[in-house]
Amino acid sequence: MDSEAIKQQKAQVGQEAVQYIEDGMVVGIGSGSTMWYMVEALGKRVHEGLNIVGVPTSKATRKHANELGIPLKTVDEVDRIDLTIDGADQIDEHYQGIKGGGASHLMEKIVATNSTKNMWIVDESKMVTAFNYPVPVEVIPYGSTQLERRLDRLDLQPKLRKNAAGEFVTTDSNNYIIDLYLDPLDDPKELAHILDPLVGVVEHGLFLDMVNTIIVQHATGPEVINVR
Amino acid sequence: MDSEAIKQQKAQVGQEAVQYIEDGMVVGIGSGSTMWYMVEALGKRVHEGLNIVGVPTSKATRKHANELGIPLKTVDEVDRIDLTIDGADQIDEHYQGIKGGGASHLMEKIVATNSTKNMWIVDESKMVTAFNYPVPVEVIPYGSTQLERRLDRLDLQPKLRKNAAGEFVTTDSNNYIIDLYLDPLDDPKELAHILDPLVGVVEHGLFLDMVNTIIVQHATGPEVINVR
Repeated sequence: MDSEAIKQQKAQVGQEAVQYIEDGMVVGIGSGSTMWYMVEALGKRVHEGLNIVGVPTSKATRKHANELGIPLKTVDEVDRIDLTIDGADQIDEHYQGIKGGGASHLMEKIVATNSTKNMWIVDESKMVTAFNYPVPVEVIPYGSTQLERRLDRLDLQPKLRKNAAGEFVTTDSNNYIIDLYLDPLDDPKELAHILDPLVGVVEHGLFLDMVNTIIVQHATGPEVINVR
Repeated sequence: MDSEAIKQQKAQVGQEAVQYIEDGMVVGIGSGSTMWYMVEALGKRVHEGLNIVGVPTSKATRKHANELGIPLKTVDEVDRIDLTIDGADQIDEHYQGIKGGGASHLMEKIVATNSTKNMWIVDESKMVTAFNYPVPVEVIPYGSTQLERRLDRLDLQPKLRKNAAGEFVTTDSNNYIIDLYLDPLDDPKELAHILDPLVGVVEHGLFLDMVNTIIVQHATGPEVINVR
Protein backbone atom coordinates (compact mmCIF):
# COMPACT_ATOMS: atom_id res chain seq x y z
CA MET A 1 0.00 0.00 0.00
CA ASP A 2 1.07 3.55 -0.68
CA SER A 3 2.06 5.73 2.27
CA GLU A 4 0.04 8.91 2.85
CA ALA A 5 2.99 10.95 1.51
CA ILE A 6 3.06 8.98 -1.77
CA LYS A 7 -0.72 9.21 -2.13
CA GLN A 8 -0.47 12.97 -1.73
CA GLN A 9 2.29 13.18 -4.35
CA LYS A 10 0.16 11.19 -6.81
CA ALA A 11 -2.75 13.58 -6.31
CA GLN A 12 -0.51 16.63 -6.68
CA VAL A 13 1.20 15.50 -9.87
CA GLY A 14 -2.12 14.41 -11.38
CA GLN A 15 -3.50 17.90 -10.86
CA GLU A 16 -0.24 19.51 -12.04
CA ALA A 17 -0.28 17.65 -15.35
CA VAL A 18 -3.67 18.97 -16.41
CA GLN A 19 -2.13 22.42 -16.90
CA TYR A 20 -0.31 21.08 -19.97
CA ILE A 21 -3.57 20.31 -21.74
CA GLU A 22 -4.62 23.09 -24.10
CA ASP A 23 -7.94 23.85 -25.72
CA GLY A 24 -8.48 21.90 -28.95
CA MET A 25 -6.04 19.12 -28.14
CA VAL A 26 -6.50 15.38 -28.71
CA VAL A 27 -5.23 13.92 -25.43
CA GLY A 28 -4.19 10.33 -24.65
CA ILE A 29 -5.38 9.48 -21.14
CA GLY A 30 -3.36 6.81 -19.36
CA SER A 31 -4.29 4.34 -16.63
CA GLY A 32 -3.42 3.67 -13.02
CA SER A 33 -3.64 5.21 -9.59
CA THR A 34 -1.80 8.46 -10.38
CA MET A 35 -3.82 8.94 -13.56
CA TRP A 36 -7.02 8.61 -11.52
CA TYR A 37 -6.28 12.04 -10.02
CA MET A 38 -5.41 13.46 -13.45
CA VAL A 39 -8.73 12.26 -14.89
CA GLU A 40 -10.63 13.83 -11.96
CA ALA A 41 -8.83 17.17 -12.54
CA LEU A 42 -9.39 16.95 -16.30
CA GLY A 43 -13.09 16.30 -15.74
CA LYS A 44 -13.29 19.55 -13.76
CA ARG A 45 -11.59 21.55 -16.52
CA VAL A 46 -13.89 20.05 -19.17
CA HIS A 47 -16.87 20.92 -16.97
CA GLU A 48 -15.52 24.50 -16.86
CA GLY A 49 -15.45 24.68 -20.67
CA LEU A 50 -12.15 23.13 -21.84
CA ASN A 51 -12.69 21.67 -25.31
CA ILE A 52 -10.65 18.51 -25.85
CA VAL A 53 -11.04 14.95 -27.11
CA GLY A 54 -9.66 12.18 -24.93
CA VAL A 55 -8.31 8.81 -26.06
CA PRO A 56 -8.33 6.39 -23.10
CA THR A 57 -5.78 3.59 -22.74
CA SER A 58 -7.91 1.12 -20.79
CA LYS A 59 -11.50 0.11 -20.20
CA ALA A 60 -11.19 1.43 -16.63
CA THR A 61 -10.02 4.86 -17.76
CA ARG A 62 -12.72 4.96 -20.45
CA LYS A 63 -15.38 4.31 -17.82
CA HIS A 64 -13.98 6.89 -15.40
CA ALA A 65 -13.56 9.62 -18.06
CA ASN A 66 -16.98 8.87 -19.48
CA GLU A 67 -18.65 9.32 -16.09
CA LEU A 68 -17.01 12.75 -15.82
CA GLY A 69 -18.34 13.86 -19.22
CA ILE A 70 -14.96 13.95 -20.98
CA PRO A 71 -15.55 13.51 -24.75
CA LEU A 72 -13.81 10.32 -25.91
CA LYS A 73 -12.70 8.70 -29.14
CA THR A 74 -10.63 5.61 -29.92
CA VAL A 75 -7.11 5.82 -31.31
CA ASP A 76 -8.49 4.79 -34.71
CA GLU A 77 -11.05 7.61 -34.78
CA VAL A 78 -8.51 10.46 -34.56
CA ASP A 79 -5.84 11.60 -37.01
CA ARG A 80 -3.18 11.96 -34.37
CA ILE A 81 -2.91 12.37 -30.58
CA ASP A 82 -1.23 15.63 -29.57
CA LEU A 83 -0.22 14.73 -26.04
CA THR A 84 -0.54 11.54 -23.99
CA ILE A 85 -0.25 11.74 -20.22
CA ASP A 86 0.32 8.51 -18.35
CA GLY A 87 1.85 7.10 -15.19
CA ALA A 88 4.78 4.67 -15.05
CA ASP A 89 5.73 1.84 -12.70
CA GLN A 90 9.42 2.75 -12.74
CA ILE A 91 11.68 5.17 -14.62
CA ASP A 92 15.42 4.52 -14.74
CA GLU A 93 18.31 6.97 -14.93
CA HIS A 94 18.19 6.96 -18.75
CA TYR A 95 14.49 7.88 -18.61
CA GLN A 96 13.35 4.51 -19.91
CA GLY A 97 10.10 3.26 -18.40
CA ILE A 98 8.39 0.10 -17.22
CA LYS A 99 4.60 0.03 -17.40
CA GLY A 100 2.04 -2.73 -17.09
CA GLY A 101 1.71 -3.42 -13.38
CA GLY A 102 -1.98 -2.82 -14.00
CA ALA A 103 -1.96 -5.03 -17.14
CA SER A 104 -2.84 -2.08 -19.43
CA HIS A 105 0.53 -1.58 -21.15
CA LEU A 106 -0.55 -2.89 -24.55
CA MET A 107 -3.24 -0.25 -25.09
CA GLU A 108 -1.02 2.35 -23.37
CA LYS A 109 1.78 1.57 -25.82
CA ILE A 110 -0.56 1.70 -28.82
CA VAL A 111 -1.76 5.15 -27.72
CA ALA A 112 1.79 6.34 -26.88
CA THR A 113 3.10 5.19 -30.27
CA ASN A 114 0.46 7.33 -32.00
CA SER A 115 1.16 10.45 -29.92
CA THR A 116 3.19 13.48 -30.94
CA LYS A 117 4.30 14.02 -27.32
CA ASN A 118 4.33 11.69 -24.33
CA MET A 119 4.39 12.86 -20.72
CA TRP A 120 4.81 10.58 -17.68
CA ILE A 121 3.71 11.74 -14.26
CA VAL A 122 5.05 9.97 -11.17
CA ASP A 123 5.65 10.28 -7.47
CA GLU A 124 9.33 10.25 -6.48
CA SER A 125 9.26 6.57 -5.40
CA LYS A 126 9.12 5.57 -9.10
CA MET A 127 12.53 7.05 -10.02
CA VAL A 128 15.33 4.46 -9.82
CA THR A 129 18.92 4.05 -10.97
CA ALA A 130 18.29 0.63 -12.56
CA PHE A 131 14.96 -1.19 -12.88
CA ASN A 132 14.09 -3.58 -10.07
CA TYR A 133 10.39 -3.93 -10.98
CA PRO A 134 9.00 -6.99 -12.77
CA VAL A 135 8.70 -6.48 -16.54
CA PRO A 136 5.16 -7.41 -17.63
CA VAL A 137 4.80 -9.24 -20.93
CA GLU A 138 1.35 -9.59 -22.51
CA VAL A 139 1.12 -13.03 -24.12
CA ILE A 140 -1.38 -15.09 -26.13
CA PRO A 141 -3.13 -17.52 -23.74
CA TYR A 142 -2.67 -20.43 -26.17
CA GLY A 143 0.86 -21.70 -25.52
CA SER A 144 1.44 -19.43 -22.52
CA THR A 145 2.64 -22.26 -20.27
CA GLN A 146 5.12 -23.36 -22.94
CA LEU A 147 6.22 -19.74 -23.34
CA GLU A 148 6.76 -19.44 -19.58
CA ARG A 149 9.05 -22.51 -19.80
CA ARG A 150 10.91 -21.00 -22.74
CA LEU A 151 11.47 -17.73 -20.84
CA ASP A 152 12.65 -19.76 -17.86
CA ARG A 153 15.23 -21.53 -20.05
CA LEU A 154 16.41 -18.02 -21.06
CA ASP A 155 16.89 -17.25 -17.32
CA LEU A 156 14.31 -14.46 -17.40
CA GLN A 157 12.56 -15.44 -14.13
CA PRO A 158 9.05 -15.62 -15.62
CA LYS A 159 5.81 -16.06 -13.73
CA LEU A 160 2.30 -16.14 -15.24
CA ARG A 161 0.30 -13.54 -13.32
CA LYS A 162 -2.65 -14.84 -11.29
CA ASN A 163 -5.28 -13.05 -9.25
CA ALA A 164 -6.15 -13.71 -5.62
CA ALA A 165 -8.47 -16.55 -6.68
CA GLY A 166 -5.59 -18.30 -8.46
CA GLU A 167 -6.94 -17.60 -11.97
CA PHE A 168 -4.79 -16.20 -14.76
CA VAL A 169 -5.16 -12.42 -14.99
CA THR A 170 -6.61 -11.41 -18.37
CA THR A 171 -5.98 -8.09 -20.09
CA ASP A 172 -8.45 -5.82 -21.88
CA SER A 173 -7.46 -7.75 -25.04
CA ASN A 174 -8.15 -11.11 -23.30
CA ASN A 175 -4.50 -12.08 -23.14
CA TYR A 176 -2.38 -13.23 -20.18
CA ILE A 177 0.54 -11.51 -18.44
CA ILE A 178 3.92 -13.09 -17.70
CA ASP A 179 6.01 -10.99 -15.29
CA LEU A 180 9.80 -11.22 -15.55
CA TYR A 181 11.38 -10.83 -12.10
CA LEU A 182 14.73 -9.40 -13.15
CA ASP A 183 16.46 -7.47 -10.38
CA PRO A 184 18.32 -5.45 -11.40
CA LEU A 185 17.55 -5.19 -15.12
CA ASP A 186 20.70 -3.54 -16.48
CA ASP A 187 20.03 -3.58 -20.21
CA PRO A 188 16.35 -3.08 -21.08
CA LYS A 189 17.13 -2.71 -24.82
CA GLU A 190 18.77 -6.13 -24.91
CA LEU A 191 15.71 -7.61 -23.17
CA ALA A 192 13.39 -5.94 -25.71
CA HIS A 193 15.44 -7.47 -28.56
CA ILE A 194 15.03 -10.92 -26.98
CA LEU A 195 11.28 -10.52 -26.39
CA ASP A 196 10.15 -8.83 -29.64
CA PRO A 197 10.55 -11.83 -31.99
CA LEU A 198 9.31 -14.48 -29.52
CA VAL A 199 6.20 -16.26 -30.79
CA GLY A 200 3.27 -15.71 -28.43
CA VAL A 201 4.58 -12.41 -27.06
CA VAL A 202 2.08 -9.64 -27.84
CA GLU A 203 3.84 -6.71 -26.16
CA HIS A 204 6.26 -6.14 -23.29
CA GLY A 205 6.04 -3.33 -20.77
CA LEU A 206 9.38 -1.68 -21.61
CA PHE A 207 8.73 1.82 -22.96
CA LEU A 208 12.08 2.75 -24.51
CA ASP A 209 13.15 6.09 -26.03
CA MET A 210 9.53 7.17 -25.89
CA VAL A 211 8.94 9.86 -23.26
CA ASN A 212 9.28 13.59 -23.95
CA THR A 213 8.53 15.07 -20.54
CA ILE A 214 8.53 13.60 -17.03
CA ILE A 215 6.97 15.31 -14.03
CA VAL A 216 8.28 13.91 -10.75
CA GLN A 217 6.40 15.01 -7.67
CA HIS A 218 8.56 15.56 -4.58
CA ALA A 219 7.40 16.65 -1.12
CA THR A 220 8.89 20.03 -2.01
CA GLY A 221 7.06 20.38 -5.32
CA PRO A 222 7.06 19.16 -8.93
CA GLU A 223 10.25 18.61 -10.94
CA VAL A 224 9.83 18.85 -14.71
CA ILE A 225 12.35 16.87 -16.80
CA ASN A 226 12.42 17.61 -20.53
CA VAL A 227 13.94 14.44 -21.98
CA ARG A 228 13.68 14.98 -25.74
CA MET B 1 -10.42 -22.05 -57.16
CA ASP B 2 -8.03 -24.96 -57.36
CA SER B 3 -7.83 -26.93 -60.60
CA GLU B 4 -8.73 -30.62 -60.44
CA ALA B 5 -5.02 -31.47 -60.77
CA ILE B 6 -4.12 -29.33 -57.73
CA LYS B 7 -7.00 -30.75 -55.70
CA GLN B 8 -5.76 -34.22 -56.48
CA GLN B 9 -2.19 -33.31 -55.43
CA LYS B 10 -3.50 -31.93 -52.11
CA ALA B 11 -5.35 -35.18 -51.42
CA GLN B 12 -2.33 -37.29 -52.38
CA VAL B 13 0.18 -35.39 -50.25
CA GLY B 14 -2.23 -35.31 -47.31
CA GLN B 15 -2.48 -39.10 -47.41
CA GLU B 16 1.28 -39.46 -47.99
CA ALA B 17 2.15 -37.44 -44.87
CA VAL B 18 0.25 -39.68 -42.48
CA GLN B 19 2.88 -42.39 -43.05
CA TYR B 20 5.36 -40.29 -41.06
CA ILE B 21 3.23 -40.46 -37.91
CA GLU B 22 4.34 -43.25 -35.58
CA ASP B 23 2.58 -44.91 -32.67
CA GLY B 24 2.96 -42.96 -29.40
CA MET B 25 3.72 -39.60 -31.04
CA VAL B 26 2.36 -36.20 -30.03
CA VAL B 27 1.44 -34.68 -33.41
CA GLY B 28 0.77 -31.04 -34.27
CA ILE B 29 -2.08 -30.91 -36.77
CA GLY B 30 -2.10 -27.88 -39.05
CA SER B 31 -4.92 -26.09 -40.85
CA GLY B 32 -6.07 -25.48 -44.39
CA SER B 33 -7.33 -27.30 -47.46
CA THR B 34 -4.37 -29.69 -47.84
CA MET B 35 -4.44 -30.52 -44.15
CA TRP B 36 -8.12 -31.43 -44.46
CA TYR B 37 -7.08 -34.54 -46.40
CA MET B 38 -4.33 -35.32 -43.88
CA VAL B 39 -6.81 -35.15 -41.00
CA GLU B 40 -9.18 -37.49 -42.84
CA ALA B 41 -6.37 -40.00 -43.42
CA LEU B 42 -5.17 -39.66 -39.81
CA GLY B 43 -8.71 -40.29 -38.57
CA LYS B 44 -8.73 -43.58 -40.50
CA ARG B 45 -5.39 -44.68 -38.98
CA VAL B 46 -6.59 -43.80 -35.46
CA HIS B 47 -9.76 -45.79 -36.13
CA GLU B 48 -7.51 -48.72 -37.13
CA GLY B 49 -5.65 -48.54 -33.80
CA LEU B 50 -2.90 -45.91 -34.13
CA ASN B 51 -2.24 -44.43 -30.68
CA ILE B 52 -1.34 -40.73 -30.90
CA VAL B 53 -2.26 -37.40 -29.32
CA GLY B 54 -3.02 -34.53 -31.68
CA VAL B 55 -2.48 -30.82 -31.02
CA PRO B 56 -4.64 -28.81 -33.44
CA THR B 57 -3.60 -25.36 -34.71
CA SER B 58 -7.06 -23.88 -35.24
CA LYS B 59 -10.63 -24.17 -34.05
CA ALA B 60 -11.58 -25.59 -37.46
CA THR B 61 -8.96 -28.35 -37.27
CA ARG B 62 -9.95 -29.09 -33.66
CA LYS B 63 -13.56 -29.59 -34.73
CA HIS B 64 -12.67 -31.76 -37.72
CA ALA B 65 -10.22 -33.97 -35.76
CA ASN B 66 -12.65 -34.27 -32.88
CA GLU B 67 -15.41 -35.50 -35.17
CA LEU B 68 -13.07 -38.22 -36.44
CA GLY B 69 -12.27 -39.40 -32.90
CA ILE B 70 -8.63 -38.27 -32.89
CA PRO B 71 -7.52 -37.73 -29.22
CA LEU B 72 -6.61 -34.07 -28.76
CA LYS B 73 -4.73 -31.89 -26.27
CA THR B 74 -3.68 -28.25 -26.29
CA VAL B 75 -0.07 -27.18 -26.68
CA ASP B 76 0.01 -26.37 -22.95
CA GLU B 77 -1.16 -29.86 -21.95
CA VAL B 78 1.76 -31.73 -23.53
CA ASP B 79 5.47 -31.74 -22.68
CA ARG B 80 6.58 -31.43 -26.27
CA ILE B 81 5.21 -32.03 -29.77
CA ASP B 82 7.20 -34.65 -31.68
CA LEU B 83 6.14 -33.75 -35.20
CA THR B 84 3.89 -31.05 -36.62
CA ILE B 85 2.48 -31.46 -40.12
CA ASP B 86 1.02 -28.37 -41.77
CA GLY B 87 0.41 -26.82 -45.14
CA ALA B 88 1.97 -23.58 -46.43
CA ASP B 89 0.77 -20.80 -48.70
CA GLN B 90 4.13 -20.46 -50.42
CA ILE B 91 7.65 -21.86 -49.99
CA ASP B 92 10.58 -20.01 -51.55
CA GLU B 93 13.87 -21.37 -52.92
CA HIS B 94 15.51 -21.07 -49.47
CA TYR B 95 12.68 -23.16 -47.96
CA GLN B 96 11.23 -20.25 -46.02
CA GLY B 97 7.44 -20.24 -45.78
CA ILE B 98 4.44 -17.92 -45.77
CA LYS B 99 1.38 -19.08 -43.88
CA GLY B 100 -1.77 -17.34 -42.76
CA GLY B 101 -3.96 -17.09 -45.85
CA GLY B 102 -6.56 -18.80 -43.66
CA ALA B 103 -5.81 -16.46 -40.71
CA SER B 104 -4.54 -19.34 -38.51
CA HIS B 105 -0.80 -18.56 -38.58
CA LEU B 106 -0.57 -17.40 -34.95
CA MET B 107 -1.69 -20.72 -33.47
CA GLU B 108 0.21 -22.57 -36.22
CA LYS B 109 3.39 -20.74 -35.26
CA ILE B 110 2.88 -21.37 -31.54
CA VAL B 111 2.50 -25.10 -32.25
CA ALA B 112 5.44 -25.14 -34.72
CA THR B 113 7.71 -23.36 -32.22
CA ASN B 114 7.02 -26.07 -29.65
CA SER B 115 7.65 -28.96 -32.06
CA THR B 116 10.81 -31.06 -32.32
CA LYS B 117 10.24 -31.52 -36.07
CA ASN B 118 8.12 -29.56 -38.56
CA MET B 119 6.90 -30.95 -41.87
CA TRP B 120 5.12 -28.93 -44.58
CA ILE B 121 3.03 -30.67 -47.20
CA VAL B 122 2.15 -28.82 -50.40
CA ASP B 123 1.07 -29.23 -53.97
CA GLU B 124 3.65 -28.09 -56.53
CA SER B 125 1.89 -24.73 -57.16
CA LYS B 126 3.15 -23.52 -53.74
CA MET B 127 6.85 -23.73 -54.62
CA VAL B 128 8.24 -20.39 -55.87
CA THR B 129 11.61 -18.76 -56.45
CA ALA B 130 10.69 -15.59 -54.49
CA PHE B 131 7.49 -14.93 -52.53
CA ASN B 132 4.69 -13.20 -54.41
CA TYR B 133 1.94 -13.99 -51.91
CA PRO B 134 0.60 -11.41 -49.43
CA VAL B 135 2.25 -11.68 -45.99
CA PRO B 136 -0.48 -11.86 -43.33
CA VAL B 137 0.14 -9.99 -40.10
CA GLU B 138 -2.11 -10.64 -37.08
CA VAL B 139 -2.69 -7.35 -35.27
CA ILE B 140 -4.50 -6.06 -32.19
CA PRO B 141 -7.85 -4.53 -33.30
CA TYR B 142 -7.29 -1.43 -31.13
CA GLY B 143 -5.09 0.87 -33.20
CA SER B 144 -5.24 -1.33 -36.31
CA THR B 145 -6.22 1.54 -38.63
CA GLN B 146 -3.28 3.60 -37.31
CA LEU B 147 -1.00 0.57 -37.76
CA GLU B 148 -2.19 0.17 -41.35
CA ARG B 149 -1.21 3.82 -41.96
CA ARG B 150 2.18 3.24 -40.33
CA LEU B 151 2.84 0.19 -42.54
CA ASP B 152 1.79 2.24 -45.55
CA ARG B 153 4.35 4.92 -44.65
CA LEU B 154 6.92 2.09 -44.58
CA ASP B 155 5.85 1.20 -48.18
CA LEU B 156 4.68 -2.27 -47.15
CA GLN B 157 1.41 -2.18 -49.17
CA PRO B 158 -0.87 -3.03 -46.23
CA LYS B 159 -4.56 -3.84 -46.39
CA LEU B 160 -6.77 -4.77 -43.43
CA ARG B 161 -8.46 -8.02 -44.43
CA LYS B 162 -12.26 -7.91 -44.77
CA ASN B 163 -14.80 -10.63 -45.50
CA ALA B 164 -17.39 -10.58 -48.29
CA ALA B 165 -19.76 -8.57 -46.04
CA GLY B 166 -17.11 -5.85 -45.65
CA GLU B 167 -16.40 -6.65 -41.98
CA PHE B 168 -12.89 -7.05 -40.61
CA VAL B 169 -11.86 -10.72 -40.54
CA THR B 170 -11.18 -11.85 -36.96
CA THR B 171 -8.79 -14.65 -36.01
CA ASP B 172 -9.29 -17.44 -33.47
CA SER B 173 -7.65 -15.03 -30.97
CA ASN B 174 -10.10 -12.23 -31.90
CA ASN B 175 -7.47 -10.15 -33.65
CA TYR B 176 -7.46 -8.62 -37.15
CA ILE B 177 -5.27 -9.43 -40.16
CA ILE B 178 -3.33 -6.91 -42.24
CA ASP B 179 -2.03 -8.40 -45.50
CA LEU B 180 1.16 -6.93 -46.99
CA TYR B 181 1.01 -7.06 -50.79
CA LEU B 182 4.73 -7.25 -51.52
CA ASP B 183 5.51 -8.74 -54.92
CA PRO B 184 8.18 -9.95 -55.04
CA LEU B 185 9.35 -10.14 -51.41
CA ASP B 186 13.11 -10.54 -51.79
CA ASP B 187 14.24 -10.41 -48.17
CA PRO B 188 11.76 -12.01 -45.74
CA LYS B 189 14.24 -11.79 -42.84
CA GLU B 190 14.52 -8.03 -43.23
CA LEU B 191 10.72 -7.78 -43.24
CA ALA B 192 10.51 -9.89 -40.06
CA HIS B 193 13.00 -7.55 -38.36
CA ILE B 194 10.81 -4.57 -39.29
CA LEU B 195 7.57 -6.22 -38.12
CA ASP B 196 8.69 -7.91 -34.87
CA PRO B 197 9.10 -4.75 -32.72
CA LEU B 198 6.07 -2.87 -34.13
CA VAL B 199 3.51 -2.09 -31.44
CA GLY B 200 0.18 -3.76 -32.24
CA VAL B 201 1.72 -6.57 -34.31
CA VAL B 202 0.92 -9.92 -32.70
CA GLU B 203 2.56 -12.23 -35.24
CA HIS B 204 3.43 -12.23 -38.93
CA GLY B 205 3.01 -15.16 -41.29
CA LEU B 206 6.69 -15.56 -42.20
CA PHE B 207 7.92 -18.96 -41.01
CA LEU B 208 11.70 -18.62 -41.24
CA ASP B 209 14.38 -21.28 -40.64
CA MET B 210 11.66 -23.48 -39.20
CA VAL B 211 10.86 -26.43 -41.46
CA ASN B 212 12.67 -29.77 -41.30
CA THR B 213 10.98 -31.71 -44.10
CA ILE B 214 8.89 -30.63 -47.09
CA ILE B 215 6.79 -32.99 -49.18
CA VAL B 216 5.91 -31.52 -52.56
CA GLN B 217 3.32 -33.44 -54.53
CA HIS B 218 3.87 -33.50 -58.29
CA ALA B 219 1.70 -35.18 -60.92
CA THR B 220 4.45 -37.81 -61.08
CA GLY B 221 4.55 -38.47 -57.32
CA PRO B 222 5.79 -37.01 -54.05
CA GLU B 223 9.17 -35.28 -53.68
CA VAL B 224 10.63 -35.33 -50.15
CA ILE B 225 13.02 -32.48 -49.31
CA ASN B 226 15.03 -32.84 -46.10
CA VAL B 227 15.91 -29.23 -45.26
CA ARG B 228 17.59 -29.50 -41.86
